[in-house]
Amino acid sequence: MKLNKFLPALIWLKSYNRTDIQNDALASIVFTIMVIPQSLAYAMLAGLPAITGLYASILPSILYSLFGTSRSLAVGPVALTSVMTASAVMPFAVSGTEQYATVAILLAFLSGVFLLVLSLLQLGFLTNLLSHPVISGFISASALLIVIGQLKHLLGTQSTGDTFVPIVTSLYAHLNAINLPTLILSIAAITSLLLMRRYFSPFLKLIGCSEKGAQLFGKSGPIIVLVLTTITVAGFSLDQLGVNIIGAIPSEIPSLKLESVNMAMLRELLPSAFLISIVGFVGSVSVAQSFAAKRRQDIDPNQELVGLGLANIGSALSGAFPVTGGFSRTVLNTDSGAQSPMTGIISALFILLILLFLTPLFFYLPIAILAAIISISMMQLVNIEDFRHLWRFSKKEAILLLITFSVVMIEGMQTGLIVGVILSLLFFLWHTSHPHIAIVGRVPGTEHFRNVQRFTVETHPSILTVRIDENLFFANARVLEERLQNLVSQNKDIKHLVLMCTAVNMIDASALQSLEKITDRLEDSGVKLHLSEVKGPVIDKLKDSDLIKNLSGKVFLTQHQAIQELEEKQADGQKKS
Amino acid sequence: MKLNKFLPALIWLKSYNRTDIQNDALASIVFTIMVIPQSLAYAMLAGLPAITGLYASILPSILYSLFGTSRSLAVGPVALTSVMTASAVMPFAVSGTEQYATVAILLAFLSGVFLLVLSLLQLGFLTNLLSHPVISGFISASALLIVIGQLKHLLGTQSTGDTFVPIVTSLYAHLNAINLPTLILSIAAITSLLLMRRYFSPFLKLIGCSEKGAQLFGKSGPIIVLVLTTITVAGFSLDQLGVNIIGAIPSEIPSLKLESVNMAMLRELLPSAFLISIVGFVGSVSVAQSFAAKRRQDIDPNQELVGLGLANIGSALSGAFPVTGGFSRTVLNTDSGAQSPMTGIISALFILLILLFLTPLFFYLPIAILAAIISISMMQLVNIEDFRHLWRFSKKEAILLLITFSVVMIEGMQTGLIVGVILSLLFFLWHTSHPHIAIVGRVPGTEHFRNVQRFTVETHPSILTVRIDENLFFANARVLEERLQNLVSQNKDIKHLVLMCTAVNMIDASALQSLEKITDRLEDSGVKLHLSEVKGPVIDKLKDSDLIKNLSGKVFLTQHQAIQELEEKQADGQKKS
Repeated sequence: MKLNKFLPALIWLKSYNRTDIQNDALASIVFTIMVIPQSLAYAMLAGLPAITGLYASILPSILYSLFGTSRSLAVGPVALTSVMTASAVMPFAVSGTEQYATVAILLAFLSGVFLLVLSLLQLGFLTNLLSHPVISGFISASALLIVIGQLKHLLGTQSTGDTFVPIVTSLYAHLNAINLPTLILSIAAITSLLLMRRYFSPFLKLIGCSEKGAQLFGKSGPIIVLVLTTITVAGFSLDQLGVNIIGAIPSEIPSLKLESVNMAMLRELLPSAFLISIVGFVGSVSVAQSFAAKRRQDIDPNQELVGLGLANIGSALSGAFPVTGGFSRTVLNTDSGAQSPMTGIISALFILLILLFLTPLFFYLPIAILAAIISISMMQLVNIEDFRHLWRFSKKEAILLLITFSVVMIEGMQTGLIVGVILSLLFFLWHTSHPHIAIVGRVPGTEHFRNVQRFTVETHPSILTVRIDENLFFANARVLEERLQNLVSQNKDIKHLVLMCTAVNMIDASALQSLEKITDRLEDSGVKLHLSEVKGPVIDKLKDSDLIKNLSGKVFLTQHQAIQELEEKQADGQKKS
Repeated sequence: MKLNKFLPALIWLKSYNRTDIQNDALASIVFTIMVIPQSLAYAMLAGLPAITGLYASILPSILYSLFGTSRSLAVGPVALTSVMTASAVMPFAVSGTEQYATVAILLAFLSGVFLLVLSLLQLGFLTNLLSHPVISGFISASALLIVIGQLKHLLGTQSTGDTFVPIVTSLYAHLNAINLPTLILSIAAITSLLLMRRYFSPFLKLIGCSEKGAQLFGKSGPIIVLVLTTITVAGFSLDQLGVNIIGAIPSEIPSLKLESVNMAMLRELLPSAFLISIVGFVGSVSVAQSFAAKRRQDIDPNQELVGLGLANIGSALSGAFPVTGGFSRTVLNTDSGAQSPMTGIISALFILLILLFLTPLFFYLPIAILAAIISISMMQLVNIEDFRHLWRFSKKEAILLLITFSVVMIEGMQTGLIVGVILSLLFFLWHTSHPHIAIVGRVPGTEHFRNVQRFTVETHPSILTVRIDENLFFANARVLEERLQNLVSQNKDIKHLVLMCTAVNMIDASALQSLEKITDRLEDSGVKLHLSEVKGPVIDKLKDSDLIKNLSGKVFLTQHQAIQELEEKQADGQKKS
């Protein structure tokens, strides 16, 4: 049972049979061919030789298949984590050097370790810090930055930097160096990619292809364009006209050169590794859950940390860069007909075969085509609709999205993400520091108590009942003190204050201390504090506390009892006096 | 009205008359004499000449009296902010130098500006980040550090550093340099201070002093000891035997030497200034509120930011260091018979007179006595009882206190405070990321729905009702997704999932997005999602959303209606099939 939890592959392997393996082998061939373009492209996005994208698709895929809990997720290079890798590595090395590869490998290793540590310490909840507006703004801005960053490849010129202003200014400075053959190739590629995305699948159906086949091969645009343009470049020797090509594949697989790693570098890489881990993890789990729901399967986020953690360590061992579960990879995987994680293992072996025997075929692959593939898939991630939606739902959260977007564009992905998270927390803290507190009264003829501002209710001049619609903890404890003191100081007739605790699910030491202070202060003001309708778990916590021991008033089971008893007491008091 | 809010002094000045001013003048004389020892001592704690404590008691006190909202609070040097000042300034200058004074003045100015900015941006709620366990651990550890730091003055030897290990090791290294006359003086002072605190007030009552007088003059131990020891030192020329004395007061009031300020220093001082501001503010407001409650008055925290902000800027203009409202100062103030903030103004004038004419009297004041006064008042702040209390109430929060305490002792006050705040936030986030979710069923014969684990209730095999006891926002949105998917994947019979939203007071865009995903995924699993008992403000937010438009199920007013209708539908379905 425990082993099953640690190695989820044991569960599906139990019932795995010959037919399954035949299906999965077929699906794997299709998937392998279809996934090559994006694997190469995202390696380039990470600032590494395109071929590294294939290194990153073998061991990580196998490890995730064994240790991950999703039956559909495909793990490998993904655009967002790749571009985050590029901006993390850039300060330490120049793209293309051995040092650059070393830092990227180190980053993959650190990300893997982080994910495993998060799993061990059960800290997966930290990823909740990425709220929807922050993620949305972050993805849109990052995607836009990626597209702008690819313009140099599409135009055959140069640009530097990883944020909006430097990229655009350096691109502008190099506009005179545009390479015409590259530009033509790019336009042709983008046009055919766009057309094929739109019309290839209906066209296939029209010529008699099955629904499923049309859906799958409708997505084969990238690989077709890749093959055709490679042949064109090779046939017309376009590389001699200035079209950049991948060229010869280095025979040696990069590895971590420990001699060029130092503590200072390690320390500075830690935040990047952490952010890449959690961004990768959040995206991956979200994809995994969507696909699992379709088959009514379950995802265990904590085990996902293990699967993705090992995948990243596997990527480091393969001389590659951070990986995670990707949406478009997973779509290709399921569209190819994958039924189990076995496809992850089999396609990894196919990619290994390609690496061993077919790399010369990539020699004439034009870099502009990879840039075109990247640009088109990134443009889909720029989501303006989401901002409009959010604006209608909550202005504050829409502004949060906008701030995250702007900071990513101007200051970079990491800063943007951190600013977004801090602002999310501040917004939340602000909200919870201003808890909804209602003065309530009795709805005539009933035992119900409702807000005096919304209902016609009966109240008593010397008894004030306040309902708190929030948990009581440090973020709002002192606000409660202020508000109650304020209410009591405004109305000198009050002799009894009843706190109606229907909505209080939890109470912490800070709130307890505030309640103790409130009791003392109210007593100084000549007002008794009572509690009503306190929930079981809360009263359990309170029962040994000084609050209950020193409470000037009583704890009533229901608000109705509280008012009945206090009103009687008041009436008695008036009779006597 | 608006002017009253900005200058609260206008409110009480309106009804201020001759009798009031006579009372307040008398109270001010007593208060001024009584408050001198702590003012001098806390300046020394800040690493500044003791006389600076008097500079810090004039303008700040006047400004707070005009702009603050408390009628009782006394503003001036306070132990915690003073020692925080010392550790903030130490990295930049050596105590006693002109540069040290400049940095301290700068710190006071920055704190003042911070407080005003917090007020302008209505960011006072940020101080809520300081939870009770963090404050408690922080104060105990800081007080202990202060006492240990005073040992060098009490023993007449030397020590360096501002955290536990350096102070104790350097003190140990200088143990051979103990000055015997100083040690004797210290022991005598501490003994008499402790005895007088305990027995002076009862003794005064015994010899016929009034209750009030006894209470007030019972607190005169420090000033009496100060006067007696100063006379002793002067009479026996103990300074010639190695007893450190204050000596000549510099004739020039320190001022901000702008030429020794640079941007790097400013940037590094900002976090310290911020922490000093919020620690000072939180302590001050808490004292102000306790005293206000006794007279059923009200404190406006936002205006307090203005009052304390101006007080700090005033302190900077007087060549002094950060100030705030202090507990023992305020006790002395009210015990002296202060009835209005006018005492703050009058006593400021008295202190000015002392500064102008009486400073030679301080020449022989032994520094060991100030250290004794500090140590005794700090020992009261070390609160072990609080830890024991907390341990009973919540182990987790007790450990938070312990961690804050330890980090302050070992790494210093700032680090300790920051670590504590981050851990508070993480604890809270952890808690709210694990919301209480109960599966509920109908209590037989009623329309009430309760937790299936606590009550014997009726449920339906194909209808699952889940009650969420938490607001829905980014910190728990994804957890909700996981839990619901988990519940549905475990039970293949479920056809309808009803979310009972009685405890949901708010919903943000992240939670909305999660609910949309949940609807889609449940639909993929063949399960319909329904909502019941959604509160008014929440339904207002949801009504235009895609969630409601695309909801596979319905929104029911009550849980009872939901179950009735769904059960009927199920029964119909079964009849037909």
